[in-house]
Amino acid sequence: MVYFLILTLTLKTVEWKNNSVIMIDQTKLPNSLEYITFTEYTQVAEAIRTLVVRGAPAIGVSGAFGLALAALQSNATEKNHLINDLETAKKILFDTRPTAVNLAWGLDKVMDVAKNADTVDEIRSSVVETVKQMAEDDVQINMLIGKNGSELFNDNDTIMTHCNAGALATVGYGTALGVIRATKDSGKSVKVIATETRPVQQGSRLTAFELKHDGIDVSLIPDTAVGYTMAKQHNIPFYVAAPLSTFDLQNRPEDIIIEQRKASEVTGIGDKRTAPDGINVINPAFDMTPPELISGIITENGIAKPPFEQSIKKLFEAKK
Amino acid sequence: MVYFLILTLTLKTVEWKNNSVIMIDQTKLPNSLEYITFTEYTQVAEAIRTLVVRGAPAIGVSGAFGLALAALQSNATEKNHLINDLETAKKILFDTRPTAVNLAWGLDKVMDVAKNADTVDEIRSSVVETVKQMAEDDVQINMLIGKNGSELFNDNDTIMTHCNAGALATVGYGTALGVIRATKDSGKSVKVIATETRPVQQGSRLTAFELKHDGIDVSLIPDTAVGYTMAKQHNIPFYVAAPLSTFDLQNRPEDIIIEQRKASEVTGIGDKRTAPDGINVINPAFDMTPPELISGIITENGIAKPPFEQSIKKLFEAKK
Repeated sequence: MVYFLILTLTLKTVEWKNNSVIMIDQTKLPNSLEYITFTEYTQVAEAIRTLVVRGAPAIGVSGAFGLALAALQSNATEKNHLINDLETAKKILFDTRPTAVNLAWGLDKVMDVAKNADTVDEIRSSVVETVKQMAEDDVQINMLIGKNGSELFNDNDTIMTHCNAGALATVGYGTALGVIRATKDSGKSVKVIATETRPVQQGSRLTAFELKHDGIDVSLIPDTAVGYTMAKQHNIPFYVAAPLSTFDLQNRPEDIIIEQRKASEVTGIGDKRTAPDGINVINPAFDMTPPELISGIITENGIAKPPFEQSIKKLFEAKK
Repeated sequence: MVYFLILTLTLKTVEWKNNSVIMIDQTKLPNSLEYITFTEYTQVAEAIRTLVVRGAPAIGVSGAFGLALAALQSNATEKNHLINDLETAKKILFDTRPTAVNLAWGLDKVMDVAKNADTVDEIRSSVVETVKQMAEDDVQINMLIGKNGSELFNDNDTIMTHCNAGALATVGYGTALGVIRATKDSGKSVKVIATETRPVQQGSRLTAFELKHDGIDVSLIPDTAVGYTMAKQHNIPFYVAAPLSTFDLQNRPEDIIIEQRKASEVTGIGDKRTAPDGINVINPAFDMTPPELISGIITENGIAKPPFEQSIKKLFEAKK
């Protein structure tokens, strides 16, 4: 119950309301907190593509929301036609961000529900119910992740976090920042070091913004200062906080397509050019962390520790 | 001789001309290539502080140029008074950037020459001759570093470089980029990956600019993509290219004061704010690389390889 109280004070990243999708426009943060309302799935696809919404869990639910909008938008009067319309929408929504598994997970879940319903009306109502439930589940899962993770930290610990795995990366509360919130709410004092996260500055714009918003002690550093900040310390544990829906149990690392983003993200910031014209750019949206560098993975079902092959399997068995 | 030909085509970062100091304004790059003329040492100090000129060797020579301006500016008619004026100027110039050893090296060298001269006229003329020679020596040293370093690379190698250790970090030609230039000029094909280097973007603004200016194949990456770019590779050697004047043989690593720069470098870019108001910032100007991660240090007297205590000593003995 306490957690719910906190939630109402924190930010709601994506919301389903009156058959439309409401999102915080994260490209405007931290300068202004603006909400946008979408009634068409192509608008949601564009919002995902342009990082109005980002963060794997938030994208998963946003994609599902988009597909629910597609179900409401479609004029189909027969199940086959509606499923066809949903398949079209699904492809457009999926192609926006190919790397993280959550988007495929959210879209597949909605498609399964749609296929299992009998009439177009049943599809529409069950799809809408499903996506509302997915959003609620996301918050519940984050609170469990937070609770599980908070046990790893001691009073006066300093936690470094990269990018934004916060309320703004999820429907609410956050994964990594959920752990930080839960640690603080359990009565322990924590300090946070946030990396700014070039090129899109999710650390300075979003993590610094949302932790400050919640009154948590946060210091911002350039990504290049990670080594400096950790210099005098050794054996610093490295934890991942993620819902089980983020795990990809099918693909091998070498099969993952890492999304390349626009060169303009790196050659300038806003209207200001910071690189010469026509320069080549490599701009991968994600890094890969070798498993041997990870101390543990905090999930809603507990914490997986090495060896991960066994411990992750155990967490999924606990889920069933 | 060939090297001189190239030099005339590359950029001249700092120059002594008609008793004044001419610098490229590096804060304006890559958008425009502008030169500023200084006739007062306090202007040079401000230029060093605000990164109009940066890069350890360039700062060393710029500081010396500043001190030579101070000698010309002074109204002193007696040696003692002139030395006093120079000591005042030296302090102001030194305080601009406390970390790199080159600034102290350049200032001390000029002070030694001044103290060894007899009259104020002799001081002025010998100081001016000395700083002109220092600028010429810097280019010669960089060409030797380039030649020594070029032997480490094979045809079709890819070289990653951080920040700007180029012509723009020196009087001309560059240290790390001098090695790249010399490798290319020796007939080998090289590709360069340049990190953008937040917060001041020396990689995107300067390295990308100057390599493109010289027709060298360069790709720009965000600092956060270093792991990604090297992911599939192992045993990548890590070389430092530096003149012997950069070596600090006196201080222990724990004695080095790492300069903290303004928070505003991290909270925004140009006029654009990218972080919330009042956020804490840690913004060290330098990182420290543990010696065990360094494959070799390329100098004008040869390449030092581990164990460094012996190999560096040998390079200095060769200097004498």
